[in-house]
Amino acid sequence: MNKVKKLINNVSDLVPETLDGLVLASHGRLKMVPGQNALIRSDLEDDKVALLIGGGSGHEPMYTAYVGKGWADVSVAGHIFAAPAPDLVFEAAKAAHRGRGVLFVYGNYAGDNMNFDIAAEMLADVGIEVRTVRVCDDVAVKDPAERRGIAGAFYMVKVAGAACTQFKNLDEAERLVRKAQANIRSIGVAVKAGSLPETGELTFELGDDEIEIGMGAHGEPGVERRKLMPADELADEMTRLVLDDLPFKRGDRLAMLLNNLGATTMMELMIINRRARARLAQSGMEVVRTDAGPFLTCQEMAGLSLTFMRLDDELERALAEPAWSLGYRQT
Amino acid sequence: MNKVKKLINNVSDLVPETLDGLVLASHGRLKMVPGQNALIRSDLEDDKVALLIGGGSGHEPMYTAYVGKGWADVSVAGHIFAAPAPDLVFEAAKAAHRGRGVLFVYGNYAGDNMNFDIAAEMLADVGIEVRTVRVCDDVAVKDPAERRGIAGAFYMVKVAGAACTQFKNLDEAERLVRKAQANIRSIGVAVKAGSLPETGELTFELGDDEIEIGMGAHGEPGVERRKLMPADELADEMTRLVLDDLPFKRGDRLAMLLNNLGATTMMELMIINRRARARLAQSGMEVVRTDAGPFLTCQEMAGLSLTFMRLDDELERALAEPAWSLGYRQT
Repeated sequence: MNKVKKLINNVSDLVPETLDGLVLASHGRLKMVPGQNALIRSDLEDDKVALLIGGGSGHEPMYTAYVGKGWADVSVAGHIFAAPAPDLVFEAAKAAHRGRGVLFVYGNYAGDNMNFDIAAEMLADVGIEVRTVRVCDDVAVKDPAERRGIAGAFYMVKVAGAACTQFKNLDEAERLVRKAQANIRSIGVAVKAGSLPETGELTFELGDDEIEIGMGAHGEPGVERRKLMPADELADEMTRLVLDDLPFKRGDRLAMLLNNLGATTMMELMIINRRARARLAQSGMEVVRTDAGPFLTCQEMAGLSLTFMRLDDELERALAEPAWSLGYRQT
Repeated sequence: MNKVKKLINNVSDLVPETLDGLVLASHGRLKMVPGQNALIRSDLEDDKVALLIGGGSGHEPMYTAYVGKGWADVSVAGHIFAAPAPDLVFEAAKAAHRGRGVLFVYGNYAGDNMNFDIAAEMLADVGIEVRTVRVCDDVAVKDPAERRGIAGAFYMVKVAGAACTQFKNLDEAERLVRKAQANIRSIGVAVKAGSLPETGELTFELGDDEIEIGMGAHGEPGVERRKLMPADELADEMTRLVLDDLPFKRGDRLAMLLNNLGATTMMELMIINRRARARLAQSGMEVVRTDAGPFLTCQEMAGLSLTFMRLDDELERALAEPAWSLGYRQT
């Protein structure tokens, strides 16, 4: 047996029990949207553009732990690795709407796109305007239309949270989040697959000395399978893949995110960070912000993703804007 | 082969490379103590009681990521799972000393006790007064003198950081940290061992359907080995073991920490949280603060520890005092 042992109860209760735990951990700041697998702020201001985020569950802290003042207003949680149903998105958006429209931010996956789009139409029918900006940062996918959203979602949602707090209209909020979207690129590397928590089975198999470069957050195929290599060599390869894509240029100012996909230590992230920073310095780029930890996980997958975001003054301010959520406190 | 694949370079460089990465991630807030595996605040105030923390490496974010304004002033990093040498502690304490003495906070392990005590004597010889409060929260060890320090270290260090900022003398700082120490209890459960990063070998073996209750942070033997059980049953058992020890009483006000030992998901922590909160409510205890995430890890060990801290107004304020570190921002 090579199953992963999970600390769970009935598999059908995974998502609601997780949300219950998050509500309790928030000590009054978050609550459920009645009857829905959706978390909403308890202290939601009037007269703001609403920010709705979400996707399949199982990637926590993304998305449900990024609801709070300065972050998202509401988050919808699909089943494990499955798109939220249109009705769920519809009800959650209605609950968060404050008269100035709703911005949707979620990962670019076919199932999510379909369901969120249906919900947007349902909302239009009741007079609620929706705009959508999809996270599509994974440089492992070459076709821009097909690009998956991975841990760059963290910076997208942070900018969206600041934009929906600062601006009183949907146009301006959408403009800033699209600017973030255009400037974020990521690459992931898996050393070991994560499990499907309902069964404990791994989502893919890797050899004892193999790593997968560019796999998706659910184990979708990547760029290539390679032999395990020293951290510095891997940092060079990941940095190159991300920098070449935008492409980032000498003089760029960057935020850098090192995402633990589930079972990789802070020690390893910091060893990679050290080398990536040396490479960026050689390329004439300045890193002004670093975030390291679990942001978008795939259960206990071992590996990491590396995200660079090119900043201008407006984006840098949006990231720095104070904000509270269970997943991240910005001070 | 059942080895864990690690993203590292030479094993002899694990600790300094990790510290380099942390300094870079701090963007100027932290620096190395010259020539030592120790991280110190760049903006250390004059005229304060210095707080020194530390222990063996490999448990990040504990201890090195809890250095910063309102947290520790300096942290010493031993080799992986090994006590820091007396000279290292001595040099780090000298670098942080600001004329009002140094408080040592670290886990109660024989090797650490010996080396930190030697350093304290060396410091006394050069006229620097040291007080020591050891983390000893693990209820799996029945003899209080032998009690290991596990994730309760997080609350100990937070209180110590507030105390060493607020009070201008070592007596008062020590008093408050001893009060914290007396009111913190924890229990750990492992589902799967972590590795020794130098070799990739697991630190202990568990059967496919076994869990270990009360093991130490390096895989030291626990209270008992049990069959994998539903999360609710485990939450009941862990809650009971911790509550019975102090013992906590009806009417107590608590902080509660759910520590991911390395590879356990936020989903699982929240499922456990939900049930533990129900049990505490039944027992007439109020939880006023919850912290969940990786605080003290053992590489990619799967499992969690549960910590309760009994609060009075002074301890609650100390936890709530704003503070910045790479590992935790208190707002």
